Amino acid sequence: MTAEKKYAARAGAVNSLLCVGLDSDATSLPEWARQHDSPQLTFNRRIIDLTAPHAAAFKFNMAFYEAAGPSGLRQLADSLEYLRGEHPDILTISDAKRGDIGNSSAAYARAIFDELGFDAVTLSPYLGRDALQPFLDYRDKACIILCRTSNPGSAEFQNLEIAGQALWKQVAIAVADQWNSNNNCMLVAAATYPEEMGQIRAIAGDMTLLVPGIGAQGGDVASVVRAGLNSRGQGLIINASRSIIFASEPAEAASSLRDVINQHRAP
Amino acid sequence: MTAEKKYAARAGAVNSLLCVGLDSDATSLPEWARQHDSPQLTFNRRIIDLTAPHAAAFKFNMAFYEAAGPSGLRQLADSLEYLRGEHPDILTISDAKRGDIGNSSAAYARAIFDELGFDAVTLSPYLGRDALQPFLDYRDKACIILCRTSNPGSAEFQNLEIAGQALWKQVAIAVADQWNSNNNCMLVAAATYPEEMGQIRAIAGDMTLLVPGIGAQGGDVASVVRAGLNSRGQGLIINASRSIIFASEPAEAASSLRDVINQHRAP
Repeated sequence: MTAEKKYAARAGAVNSLLCVGLDSDATSLPEWARQHDSPQLTFNRRIIDLTAPHAAAFKFNMAFYEAAGPSGLRQLADSLEYLRGEHPDILTISDAKRGDIGNSSAAYARAIFDELGFDAVTLSPYLGRDALQPFLDYRDKACIILCRTSNPGSAEFQNLEIAGQALWKQVAIAVADQWNSNNNCMLVAAATYPEEMGQIRAIAGDMTLLVPGIGAQGGDVASVVRAGLNSRGQGLIINASRSIIFASEPAEAASSLRDVINQHRAP
Repeated sequence: MTAEKKYAARAGAVNSLLCVGLDSDATSLPEWARQHDSPQLTFNRRIIDLTAPHAAAFKFNMAFYEAAGPSGLRQLADSLEYLRGEHPDILTISDAKRGDIGNSSAAYARAIFDELGFDAVTLSPYLGRDALQPFLDYRDKACIILCRTSNPGSAEFQNLEIAGQALWKQVAIAVADQWNSNNNCMLVAAATYPEEMGQIRAIAGDMTLLVPGIGAQGGDVASVVRAGLNSRGQGLIINASRSIIFASEPAEAASSLRDVINQHRAP
């Protein structure tokens, strides 16, 4: 099954477009997790247990595991194994933002898709399609290309106008029209820029969009859902990280965000 | 000492602008290395012993270590420790091409600068300056921003024209004029596009340029040196990876490339 179909099936089964971001920064974990030998794994198992019933996807930001050294990488692999064992139908995303020339990209793809077994990865477009081809060649995996990112300074290059069209729009067009020949591309469209998200939706047809920026970063759920749903009333992976995993009641935070999203999906 | 000064001192001491790229792909290592428990470490120690006398820098492409899982990361850390022990004056570069939003970039910076102890890292500009600020705040480290990359398809976005200037040029201008307030930025300028390298040199003043694309990728040494030297006859980190580390005589390959570079530096 392709990653896109896996996500759509899970989103339908639990009636949720929510992705829980396991940004499990070892330096920010609560005391009960820090007492363990594998604090990130211990923390992730609990967050998975609490939030999985409400989630269609989990996203792991690689930075927070790499910062803990080889032990962090092992805890990442063990967290993934636990998640797959408990919930094999949930989409797993490596938020890695990789992008390198061909033979290096091939090694990153092996690391993320084969070694770790992720269903999807985030990728930077700056080097061009040929550099990412080794990722694109994995037909059953999803390649999620950065288009409009959520940070305040994302306009610096992404909004530069080329023949009247912003760079982020050039990226959306290239991915939708050319890079997607295996039907395995998705785009990052930040919740913090809902107007651009609507334009990305218009360019990308029914392509699935990964939406960061809800919660701690201030994006608005109503605007995201209004601008981003595809023609089938799906096509969004709406991520929240810190606002769920560091909430005092993570299960409650996840289920209520799922409900708010669904409220705005209703006609 | 800053990374830039460390590089200049070593380049002067051994009269070399050569960087050896330890792209030690575990699947490509020779038989004698693959027989060991830690094949990448065993291979790297030998390549370091053979080539260090001719090198001013070593660059580690993270992809090839991540592809070997947690063991690969441990071999990367051990290789670095060995290199620092034997040759503490050689510049160490993490070729990671990272680029994420602020709190994730802060975690990547901890991983690469603090945990692993690299002197320098390659970074993608697509998210803009604010996203990379956590790296830029390390005053003694070098932030090497992708500008013009060596792959055949790099023109796809990098050559798009914005108000008459290609995107790669906009990146060079932003880095030289704004991002470099701590004097710790460098730029990637590929050997495969020597004309663009000359223009990057004109924009960036005496800023150091990291030059991939010599050797296996076909870049020409004479053109690189002619276009890229700064006003002090330095300012280039010329990288070769596979053509040195997989040569039948790596020491000979490194020393002869250093000599060819120096031949073109002579007035």
